[in-house]
Amino acid sequence: MTTATDTVAPTGGREERRRHANEEAVRRIVTSEPVLVDVRPAGEVLPGMTPRTILTSGAPMDWAAYTGGQRNAVIGAVLFEGLAATAEEADARLASGDIRLAPCHDHGAVGSVSGVCSASMPVLVVRDQANGTTGHCRMNEGIARESLTFGVCNDAVLRQMAHVRDVIAPTLAEAVRSVGGIPLKPIIRRALNMGDDLHSRNIAASLIFRARIQEALLAARGVIDDRRALGLSVFLTESDYFFLHLSMAAGKAAADAASGIPGSSVVTAMTVSEKEFALRLSGTGPRWFRHPLPPITSLPIKLFDGFTPDDLAFMGGESTITETIGLGGMAAAAAMPLQDYAAGSPEGMVEQTDRMYRITLAEHPVYRIPFLRFRGTPTGIDARLVADTGIPPVVHMGASHRDGGHIGAGLFLPPLDPFRAALDALHTLDDTADTADTADTADIPENPEDRA
Amino acid sequence: MTTATDTVAPTGGREERRRHANEEAVRRIVTSEPVLVDVRPAGEVLPGMTPRTILTSGAPMDWAAYTGGQRNAVIGAVLFEGLAATAEEADARLASGDIRLAPCHDHGAVGSVSGVCSASMPVLVVRDQANGTTGHCRMNEGIARESLTFGVCNDAVLRQMAHVRDVIAPTLAEAVRSVGGIPLKPIIRRALNMGDDLHSRNIAASLIFRARIQEALLAARGVIDDRRALGLSVFLTESDYFFLHLSMAAGKAAADAASGIPGSSVVTAMTVSEKEFALRLSGTGPRWFRHPLPPITSLPIKLFDGFTPDDLAFMGGESTITETIGLGGMAAAAAMPLQDYAAGSPEGMVEQTDRMYRITLAEHPVYRIPFLRFRGTPTGIDARLVADTGIPPVVHMGASHRDGGHIGAGLFLPPLDPFRAALDALHTLDDTADTADTADTADIPENPEDRA
Repeated sequence: MTTATDTVAPTGGREERRRHANEEAVRRIVTSEPVLVDVRPAGEVLPGMTPRTILTSGAPMDWAAYTGGQRNAVIGAVLFEGLAATAEEADARLASGDIRLAPCHDHGAVGSVSGVCSASMPVLVVRDQANGTTGHCRMNEGIARESLTFGVCNDAVLRQMAHVRDVIAPTLAEAVRSVGGIPLKPIIRRALNMGDDLHSRNIAASLIFRARIQEALLAARGVIDDRRALGLSVFLTESDYFFLHLSMAAGKAAADAASGIPGSSVVTAMTVSEKEFALRLSGTGPRWFRHPLPPITSLPIKLFDGFTPDDLAFMGGESTITETIGLGGMAAAAAMPLQDYAAGSPEGMVEQTDRMYRITLAEHPVYRIPFLRFRGTPTGIDARLVADTGIPPVVHMGASHRDGGHIGAGLFLPPLDPFRAALDALHTLDDTADTADTADTADIPENPEDRA
Repeated sequence: MTTATDTVAPTGGREERRRHANEEAVRRIVTSEPVLVDVRPAGEVLPGMTPRTILTSGAPMDWAAYTGGQRNAVIGAVLFEGLAATAEEADARLASGDIRLAPCHDHGAVGSVSGVCSASMPVLVVRDQANGTTGHCRMNEGIARESLTFGVCNDAVLRQMAHVRDVIAPTLAEAVRSVGGIPLKPIIRRALNMGDDLHSRNIAASLIFRARIQEALLAARGVIDDRRALGLSVFLTESDYFFLHLSMAAGKAAADAASGIPGSSVVTAMTVSEKEFALRLSGTGPRWFRHPLPPITSLPIKLFDGFTPDDLAFMGGESTITETIGLGGMAAAAAMPLQDYAAGSPEGMVEQTDRMYRITLAEHPVYRIPFLRFRGTPTGIDARLVADTGIPPVVHMGASHRDGGHIGAGLFLPPLDPFRAALDALHTLDDTADTADTADTADIPENPEDRA
């Protein structure tokens, strides 16, 4: 186990290069300083976004491959933008490519569950002030069980989306700008002391965030309309999950900062669509390594009262970005109140985090776990450690009803194959680099220590 | 271990009477429904309060016995009320009895540290809607290290007290009344899931309470002055300890409800003055059982940076009411972030709560500990179990500087003698009751089961 601040003098060799690359990737993740700076329509802030682009969770698939809740949500986004009058028309325009379907991850964003995001939808803009990157996530649309996030499109859902777009989000944007942005790292740090994992449990972080916004609203009287201010306060009060999309946007900013470091085997994205799991490594850049999802009934999920395993369906999701930066399933031992929806017992939560140290490269210097004597959360998933140990990262996931709605929570254990495939691809790139190095440095004597 | 809801058919005998009396005492504690209903000047709401009464922590002592910070605080309260122009005059009027010094506990209140409270000072009014009792505690005066609470009286302290009395407290009162009161039990329940013990750590409860008040302020625009509303919000934001005085007032309401049950050996008050520890049992009513305090340097206390054990002094305190109702040191295993200031390690926090189950009669049905698989907190200290096991209740205490100020936190272990003395007194009352029973029931045959 090394920490991000360890430094080792380069002595050459593939192992040393990997080690340095990974240390740099982890350093960028743990030094990230995410700040919520604005809330803006996706079309105004996401790179490459157009009025005819619909973003969704997961590595890209042909439109025809979407058959469940994620399909409903994408069609809902088309209708929400007024790009089609009916679901049939939306379907046809998506099939023809006239409306472009694209992965959130390729547009600076991550999506919750279905992850749909279209040009007019409000996104949380989180700037990483240490690394200079920006992560985005669509703003939470509220607490109704039926939502576009969970694959339901009907009149009530679209009305709520419009209310959030036209009233709630602009008010939040005003409040955020009035205080010059809201640093998220101190909120996440404190929430880990208060039982949150920042993935399946966000109660403390949402509460800290809400109180901060409420004070901004009280200070902005006369500037922000009174009724709108109260409406935003009530909206935030209702949602114990509001902060999830902020921890996701913070995760995206940090993970993007850690991307593209040659030779690094650190995981920089994990994503789920209706059909597939996929991941990226830092050293292999934007390439996805994919695998079909396991049967959902094979996962340890605890359902809310009144639901059965037959109700379950995968509907996508990129909140796995929280595990990617050392939160969620990595921080299980911080989130004892979540035990019934995760490892099942206090001891199980501790064991889970202990296991995650075996596949990660660092202990987070700021995000700490009280029950482990304030040890830092396991941070920086190394695909090689996953492949070598056969231990997959544990993801704390929300469970979706096949007809939409949040009906429980549990654990998702990604398949190991994509970790192995990504490593193979990294090795191929290593070979190329070695050849280039040899060519470049053929006349430089070897370091004698390397022969010892 | 029994829970408060267990019932046992009376079969006569001293043991059975004790058991029933204790079950009733514990039932009242755990079914308590504390609601903050108002914030009012002490003189308007405390029973028996007069303009010339000064309340303070601890069982009563002669004025001459107060020599340290508690003395400073009492004199400060006299000056604050304008009952004397100088400290010397205040001293003389207290010595003559012209100004009456009385224990908080005898006036429906509990006091934090020095515990001083005088007629114009604002008190939190917490009504127990299940039992019909009311508990009070002076409102927290803010975060300055120098405060009347911690035994300092100077111009800055008195100015801050006046600001709280004239501006902050009336605004809070308006906000509280505007929402018809604020139920505290749900806040305490949730805070235990968020790392609070509700004695030495109140971060979560203070945050939940603050967000509730902020929303009330946003809803009361036009009714509550904008600048006052913002001022209150900032005041609450600054203080992670604000809720302590609410959990104390809630504790007083519940403990008073459990008081005066003939035969009950349940502890209903523990209190500390500069010089003494004292306690009350339910079955012995208002009588105090006292003992000199141990040397403060013998206690396990962790000081904030820059202080030494020589700085420490006892200054009184009745926040021990939180332990009396199953919080504070009883709930150590809920408050892992507090480990360095309490049992010293995560395992120590668990062991401490485990130990407290040995001297308590119930597991709280609402206040639960995530790390113990949501087992209820140990509630209802039985003086007999304390005497039999030799295990004192563990109190999470704040540490005071001898010249005033909050300089650390640690554990206070009350002396065992007063528990034994109280039991002896209870047995004497039992004897009297037995004699009366015998006289009353001499012609009723004994229950044959009693002879078995």
